Amino acid sequence: MVEQQNKGIGKQALQLVLASSDELEELKSDMEQLTYQYCLGKTGSMDLQKVVSAIETAAKRNHIIKEKLYREMHALYHAILEAVQGVTRGQVQLGDVMRTVGLRFAVVRGKPYANEDEGEWVAVALYGTIGAPIRGLEHETAGLGINHI
Amino acid sequence: MVEQQNKGIGKQALQLVLASSDELEELKSDMEQLTYQYCLGKTGSMDLQKVVSAIETAAKRNHIIKEKLYREMHALYHAILEAVQGVTRGQVQLGDVMRTVGLRFAVVRGKPYANEDEGEWVAVALYGTIGAPIRGLEHETAGLGINHI
Amino acid sequence: MVEQQNKGIGKQALQLVLASSDELEELKSDMEQLTYQYCLGKTGSMDLQKVVSAIETAAKRNHIIKEKLYREMHALYHAILEAVQGVTRGQVQLGDVMRTVGLRFAVVRGKPYANEDEGEWVAVALYGTIGAPIRGLEHETAGLGINHI
Amino acid sequence: MVEQQNKGIGKQALQLVLASSDELEELKSDMEQLTYQYCLGKTGSMDLQKVVSAIETAAKRNHIIKEKLYREMHALYHAILEAVQGVTRGQVQLGDVMRTVGLRFAVVRGKPYANEDEGEWVAVALYGTIGAPIRGLEHETAGLGINHI
Amino acid sequence: MVEQQNKGIGKQALQLVLASSDELEELKSDMEQLTYQYCLGKTGSMDLQKVVSAIETAAKRNHIIKEKLYREMHALYHAILEAVQGVTRGQVQLGDVMRTVGLRFAVVRGKPYANEDEGEWVAVALYGTIGAPIRGLEHETAGLGINHI
Amino acid sequence: MVEQQNKGIGKQALQLVLASSDELEELKSDMEQLTYQYCLGKTGSMDLQKVVSAIETAAKRNHIIKEKLYREMHALYHAILEAVQGVTRGQVQLGDVMRTVGLRFAVVRGKPYANEDEGEWVAVALYGTIGAPIRGLEHETAGLGINHI
Ligand SMILES: [Mg+2]
Ligand SMILES: [Mg+2]
Ligand SMILES: [Mg+2]
Ligand SMILES: [Mg+2]
Ligand SMILES: [Mg+2]
Ligand SMILES: [Mg+2]
Repeated sequence: MVEQQNKGIGKQALQLVLASSDELEELKSDMEQLTYQYCLGKTGSMDLQKVVSAIETAAKRNHIIKEKLYREMHALYHAILEAVQGVTRGQVQLGDVMRTVGLRFAVVRGKPYANEDEGEWVAVALYGTIGAPIRGLEHETAGLGINHI
Repeated sequence: MVEQQNKGIGKQALQLVLASSDELEELKSDMEQLTYQYCLGKTGSMDLQKVVSAIETAAKRNHIIKEKLYREMHALYHAILEAVQGVTRGQVQLGDVMRTVGLRFAVVRGKPYANEDEGEWVAVALYGTIGAPIRGLEHETAGLGINHI
Repeated sequence: MVEQQNKGIGKQALQLVLASSDELEELKSDMEQLTYQYCLGKTGSMDLQKVVSAIETAAKRNHIIKEKLYREMHALYHAILEAVQGVTRGQVQLGDVMRTVGLRFAVVRGKPYANEDEGEWVAVALYGTIGAPIRGLEHETAGLGINHI
Repeated sequence: MVEQQNKGIGKQALQLVLASSDELEELKSDMEQLTYQYCLGKTGSMDLQKVVSAIETAAKRNHIIKEKLYREMHALYHAILEAVQGVTRGQVQLGDVMRTVGLRFAVVRGKPYANEDEGEWVAVALYGTIGAPIRGLEHETAGLGINHI
Repeated sequence: MVEQQNKGIGKQALQLVLASSDELEELKSDMEQLTYQYCLGKTGSMDLQKVVSAIETAAKRNHIIKEKLYREMHALYHAILEAVQGVTRGQVQLGDVMRTVGLRFAVVRGKPYANEDEGEWVAVALYGTIGAPIRGLEHETAGLGINHI
Repeated sequence: MVEQQNKGIGKQALQLVLASSDELEELKSDMEQLTYQYCLGKTGSMDLQKVVSAIETAAKRNHIIKEKLYREMHALYHAILEAVQGVTRGQVQLGDVMRTVGLRFAVVRGKPYANEDEGEWVAVALYGTIGAPIRGLEHETAGLGINHI
């Protein structure tokens, strides 16, 4: 049996993208105790490539992921794609089906399992709006992707 | 332009499924102020039909949705399916691809937009674990579906 | 039990896109009796965004859908996407997978159920050809999407 | 350039599944002039396998398709799957996602192109209802699949 | 029962894309004995349209497929799409989800079944790499599509 | 830049499932030189769950994957699902859409990249037949999935 720590890496990532500025301060201290690494950012586009790229770039610049190591980039990439599937729900497409997103993203890296051998994992959480490319014609959307590194 | 209220119906639903018991008390008072209706529940299965059915049943029993009115059931059904796509990320399948879920779910109904004419919407949030049918061989998963009623 | 009227809104929409000019006259008088509102149009492109946009624009210009009301645009949008899935059968893509469409579309709005409380619904029907971007290298295709408004 | 005959094989199939009993008589004489072969049937299930099987069986029994010849069965099978995608719009699933269908189906075989070398093609059309496994909680659905034989 | 020849058309196509230059010579003599026709090529792009187009063009130029006959182009097109699904595993997309491919492709045409009436079939095999648009950040990928002509 | 070794782990896995018994002997000596670990097996079913399970069980019994370590099981699971997508090309389903498979599978584990830090990866290759549940009414199919461990 694989024992999981109290607070999952995915819940942590989701709470980061959902947090108000006050809640964010509290979460940051939580994460230091858990020795999780993370980065936060925003991205908005009708072009899915830009969304994927914004998350990858943030994770690399904040040294969450080693950009020279393909296994780390591969782990992050599939976690991003999984999160994007929650956001797009059915067709992994934005502009092609005439819609746009405005998203906050969080990338969290750490050891979520009590067993040390389970090693490091990465979580990508997305939260924001999706809708027509007309301000206000939009509703909320979210996604979570998780992978071992 | 469609103005949105401070706290989205989707964020509300996600926070309900992510909440610890302490956080839950706080959220419940939030929701009364917003005049949102909601229900919370748990479901776990290798059979996707049971997951869909558990959420539908809870929403009907708690009078979030009028079960005799197809337009309400239809709105809820598509919101559930969208949330399930976030959970399954690619194939809307559980047992068929040898995996199982343990999920908390929230169904929230209300008027998330400032413009009264936008009427009522429903949000379905899911959070829990997905993995092999062996305890512990699992990671977190989440999904959010939103629809007008 | 929800009783449905004799002629469904979807059948009406499909017959509109399949009709010859003679048949069209007959259908138009049918629809007046049913108090359905509708619009008809044509669109052809390798760019799926243009297909979605053409249908949305026609529905707005013909006052089938209130463009300022997101709940109506949202209902139409998902009905369009469902119809497009019938046309594309598997990948919601045109030019990216080297194919083009020439389509007639119909958007029909009204009350298809006998129970007044079921309110208004929208049907989007598509019929035409899909194939290589070379005239004649194509076969027929169709799709139907239905949603509550 | 490949010239197509006045009435497509797909339109023919769609009109067969949409027809009232009066319209059906008229269509049948149309089809004799076009030398198209066809069969018509009904199927209803929460089990997608039964839907596929009902259409295959009808096509074999009515000698639309030679059941001993794999190339014919293969052509029909893919046409059925394409039609089913129009019916299910996104997930090729029924009971697993808690829904059921009641469908009329038509299988039409013949030469839709003016150029004799284009040979025979098959069209599968589906029309009926999809929804919750409770009578009346359902809306219309349709699909069309086309393949060369 | 349909008897298949010793060496399948799909295995033949896969071995062609996997072969080193030495192995290729051996395979070429195999194929002459089997009276299979084939062509081989390379394509690399972030643009899926170019991948589809490169394979179609090679098959036409090498007279594997008659480009004036839609039924042959249709058979090839669906075989290509099926092979591409093996390469992309889930979303039939490249640049849109920030990835690129470098592929060898083989198109093989012939009669793989002992029963003469089963006629001609086409196989499309793909093998190469998929990954980020940065040299080396990639892993292998493959796909196989088969259709009757 | 990440340098790859001469023979990829995916090519190795594909050649194992395509090999005749003579070719297999040769491949086995190749693999010893490359220090790749692998296992080979067969599985046939209309039930996708059995296919996934057969591959997982073989990988565990042959000690390719440590069954107590979730990160290894997770890596294998996603590689299997990716390979299955090549086999099913569009809908990750067998019996539900009235088809069955007979497959050979190979699981290969090792270090395919020259850079030691890239660590271990796993490849799952599938090759066999897919078709109607009637002997002979089937054609070839293949899939390849690759993941970091
Ligand atoms: Mg996973
Ligand atoms: Mg929506
Ligand atoms: Mg619906
Ligand atoms: Mg086609
Ligand atoms: Mg096939
Ligand atoms: Mg990968």
